[in-house]
Amino acid sequence: MIEFDSTQIESIPKRERAHLINNLCGLRSANLIGTSDGSEDNLAIFNSVIHLGSNPPLLGIVFRPLTVERHTYNNIKETKYFSINQITRTMTANAHHTSAKFEYQQSEFEFCGIKSLHREGCVVPFVKESNIQILCTYSREHMLENDCILLTATIERFWVNSDSINKSHWLNHEKATSTAIGGLDAYYQVSLIDRYNYAQPDTAPKSILD
Amino acid sequence: MIEFDSTQIESIPKRERAHLINNLCGLRSANLIGTSDGSEDNLAIFNSVIHLGSNPPLLGIVFRPLTVERHTYNNIKETKYFSINQITRTMTANAHHTSAKFEYQQSEFEFCGIKSLHREGCVVPFVKESNIQILCTYSREHMLENDCILLTATIERFWVNSDSINKSHWLNHEKATSTAIGGLDAYYQVSLIDRYNYAQPDTAPKSILD
Repeated sequence: MIEFDSTQIESIPKRERAHLINNLCGLRSANLIGTSDGSEDNLAIFNSVIHLGSNPPLLGIVFRPLTVERHTYNNIKETKYFSINQITRTMTANAHHTSAKFEYQQSEFEFCGIKSLHREGCVVPFVKESNIQILCTYSREHMLENDCILLTATIERFWVNSDSINKSHWLNHEKATSTAIGGLDAYYQVSLIDRYNYAQPDTAPKSILD
Repeated sequence: MIEFDSTQIESIPKRERAHLINNLCGLRSANLIGTSDGSEDNLAIFNSVIHLGSNPPLLGIVFRPLTVERHTYNNIKETKYFSINQITRTMTANAHHTSAKFEYQQSEFEFCGIKSLHREGCVVPFVKESNIQILCTYSREHMLENDCILLTATIERFWVNSDSINKSHWLNHEKATSTAIGGLDAYYQVSLIDRYNYAQPDTAPKSILD
């Protein structure tokens, strides 16, 4: 094992250090967030969408400090709605492209080769190719000590590809071809190892796969 | 695509619904958190460790409401320290086992067949087999609207297996055999798809793998 104490951490070149620290906590969710200001659609990649509760269904997104204009954040505050769209194996390069600094009026859908989907009664665009699509409503904001913002939201409706879910409503991320993000720029595909029963102290976990 | 609106969400059996909602936001990090009350070691699996900032290095853990005794949370409050230990491909069943309701004085290390590692000057135990091990210090708590707690912490020191990191300090989660968690009970292994350069509006992302 290589040890990194505070002196060694400081001695790593700045950009490499940011990538390393970003990578330490493990794999992260890979999603595209779709928003609108009422007329222009916006799409941006996020590795910081997290589950916060299932009853009521609550999730969070971590936003970096608001020192530059953040189109996604502004649109969510404006309309109170956004969509979360899963990034599949074939979408990673195009999804990464949305992280470029596009002008406000430029459509990431068009520039990045991603097909949008508009649904009756939804102000926000969805990503047609995503096997998991969620419509969310703004709930609240929590300011963190490093000036990042944890924005929370409730799940209003969602859509899942029928091949990805079984009769017990279990969503298999391998079948959904979900990806995971390492740090800021590495994309991984996932293969199921196993799914275990509710753990008991005196017996080893058992597989509950069909 | 199968649509789930609020009525359909409500109609799903309670436990299946919790699993489905837990699964929607995508893959989650897979870590074991090591704590101590000063004499007894504790080890517990968490799928809610998130990166919050790299300068200073800040991370978060989401704790469920404190309606039952939470050994990990109590120990962190007591000693202000904890360790984060990555779950590798071969550890998933044993790691899942730590989620069982063990008595306070029962050692998860012993019952779940996980080897501990004690380091000079660290009050908390580490997991010997983990390829990424992080020593963290308590920073703050943020109460969320569903009574979950986002506990934040700074990274003090960390250790990475030398086979998992290259000369540019890039940590490859496939080489580290990191796993990702789907929902509450499914474990996935990961394989690298690609790593891309910093995105530019007018050009498609390029691979920066060696």
